[in-house]
Amino acid sequence: MTVAAALADLPTPCLILDEARMLRNIARLKTHLDGLGVALRPHLKTLKSVEAARRVLKDGNGPATVSTLKEAEVFAAAGVRDIIYAVGIAPQKLPRVIALRGAGCDLAVVLDTRVQAAAVAAMSRAVGDAIPALIEIDCDGHRAGLKPDDPEIVAIGRILHEGGAQLRGVLCHSGGSYGQVGPEALADFAEQERAAIVAAAETLRAAGLPCPVVSVGSTPTAHFARDLTGVTEVRAGVYVSQDLVMAGIGVCTPDDIALSVLATVIGHQSERGWTLVDAGWMALSRDRGTASQAVDQGYGLVCDVEGQVIPDLIVVGANQEHGIIGLRAGSTATAPDLPVGAQVRILPNHACATATEFDDYAVLPADGSAHIARWSRFRGW
Amino acid sequence: MTVAAALADLPTPCLILDEARMLRNIARLKTHLDGLGVALRPHLKTLKSVEAARRVLKDGNGPATVSTLKEAEVFAAAGVRDIIYAVGIAPQKLPRVIALRGAGCDLAVVLDTRVQAAAVAAMSRAVGDAIPALIEIDCDGHRAGLKPDDPEIVAIGRILHEGGAQLRGVLCHSGGSYGQVGPEALADFAEQERAAIVAAAETLRAAGLPCPVVSVGSTPTAHFARDLTGVTEVRAGVYVSQDLVMAGIGVCTPDDIALSVLATVIGHQSERGWTLVDAGWMALSRDRGTASQAVDQGYGLVCDVEGQVIPDLIVVGANQEHGIIGLRAGSTATAPDLPVGAQVRILPNHACATATEFDDYAVLPADGSAHIARWSRFRGW
Repeated sequence: MTVAAALADLPTPCLILDEARMLRNIARLKTHLDGLGVALRPHLKTLKSVEAARRVLKDGNGPATVSTLKEAEVFAAAGVRDIIYAVGIAPQKLPRVIALRGAGCDLAVVLDTRVQAAAVAAMSRAVGDAIPALIEIDCDGHRAGLKPDDPEIVAIGRILHEGGAQLRGVLCHSGGSYGQVGPEALADFAEQERAAIVAAAETLRAAGLPCPVVSVGSTPTAHFARDLTGVTEVRAGVYVSQDLVMAGIGVCTPDDIALSVLATVIGHQSERGWTLVDAGWMALSRDRGTASQAVDQGYGLVCDVEGQVIPDLIVVGANQEHGIIGLRAGSTATAPDLPVGAQVRILPNHACATATEFDDYAVLPADGSAHIARWSRFRGW
Repeated sequence: MTVAAALADLPTPCLILDEARMLRNIARLKTHLDGLGVALRPHLKTLKSVEAARRVLKDGNGPATVSTLKEAEVFAAAGVRDIIYAVGIAPQKLPRVIALRGAGCDLAVVLDTRVQAAAVAAMSRAVGDAIPALIEIDCDGHRAGLKPDDPEIVAIGRILHEGGAQLRGVLCHSGGSYGQVGPEALADFAEQERAAIVAAAETLRAAGLPCPVVSVGSTPTAHFARDLTGVTEVRAGVYVSQDLVMAGIGVCTPDDIALSVLATVIGHQSERGWTLVDAGWMALSRDRGTASQAVDQGYGLVCDVEGQVIPDLIVVGANQEHGIIGLRAGSTATAPDLPVGAQVRILPNHACATATEFDDYAVLPADGSAHIARWSRFRGW
């Protein structure tokens, strides 16, 4: 059975996961980090699927990173036993953390304020469970965290360590790496990230505090780091599927992207060179992450139903349930004939944003059989 | 019980629906269109909730508009009996249309090509059910549809009428009205929409074809139309909740917006004037619909927990699970003290995009009791 035949009967829009590409992406990063002698702690926020997590995690049970407590709860129930919830903890959420830990999951939290540290310490004492906490470090001015030499690091470390919690270490996320392009710049950014987190760990240790875990992470830096001395683990998430934003900075090519949205042609505006499909932003997401890159992919890059990129054909506009396909500005390519009822596949700008629009994946299995499997995914908090 | 007390225990992020504001929005448009003597066919794609639809629809059973067959199926199962599926029909989807019609729902489809018309006529003959179809008209160059004087209108009309389908009329959506600002411009745009659809109806009638339904629709034009002579019905959807995009063009004020995302403060970057909350784009959506307006609201306008706008405080940036709150550029306002653990409410740029990030609404009831109800919502195709 061909891929086209396997997909022909799927209601559209539909989210396709190419398992062979996914496994290739997983193997690539594992090989790179094995070579650097550093552990990988995959971030499960992109695919949010137990079936996918089984293929990503070592032995299927961890270590892992999550962005919501809902993810922690679902993956813990599926047997994952070592998780970092990598978004600053709100004190109100600590009862759910305690419940998960009580159920046997070694769940750690992240924080960067004294208020949070005091709340974690107080909860640890109250329930007799030393909640592990990592102090978030700001390595690039991107978002949260303390500067590596901020004296607050030691102050917070003491509140945790002396207050009954477990000071597990330091963690940073170099989100700014998404704005770097090419191997050299990404390697330099990875080194900046490494230097920041190692400095923060030294700050804690110099104060006599423990810092067993030194955690960095972002898909771009994970792939291009040349040396991770002092780092104990790397977190990355979107590498499993890759996407056009990653392709735009040179982390992968479009042929590595394992996710696509299957859509059906529903009309044309020939004068404008438009083909309309039934995948609008409700399916593709509103993410325009390539808008600021050298090549703007609109709302996605169009492939034929077999998954081959059609040169210069992109989703130039999107309404809620309408995608407008056309050639990119300035292209001299010829758009293919796409009659009403024809199917196309659209590569996403941002895998995390597109995937969350769907409740499951139609999986093209890695064995090449083209017998579509269904893997469920979840969302929420 | 105060609103703050009622919301204090909700896990965040959480989608709040202010029923009193919603009912006020519903009454406002009904009053306006009653005055013009035109029927309203609400579009249910924004809230996608049976509970909300019961408050929007006349007698709870229609007429209604939907953007997906999933919506048609859910609302038909809830008793809605008169629905237009207002996205160009893909021939592959006709079996679901037939199934819904067989179950007693008068579901009509929309199309603008001969291929679609032939498919609808063939299916009508095959099952002995004259599927009602409206021909989509392009009134503003925004998306789909035929120009009002395009001879294809008659050609398609004949395929339907003579081929065994039911030619029900013409339909347009003036999506371009979202780019107009203020009552005068919106009234002019409504008149352009009216003129286009009436011309298209006349094109059909002049050819001896029936055109009982003449359907226009968009929230901006629906509120500012001064005369709808020749139009039989108006479609509008986002008016039920309103949003910042609608406020930005003068359709409503921020105080009319019935949806907000409840979020909790999880940190600060004081040097940059940032407050971090646990509502990132996964909760707020990636929609930046106000970016092209006179006042860019970032990823949303911040209110206190009672729903009062905090001047100039917006979500200046968003990552997957982090929202970054700060004063808008150039503001001389003072940001309030928002300690870790505090709650805020964020008004959405685009209600349709934000609402779909959640599985239900936490409803502040119109009776002022502040006893939170839960209305479920759905998504998918």
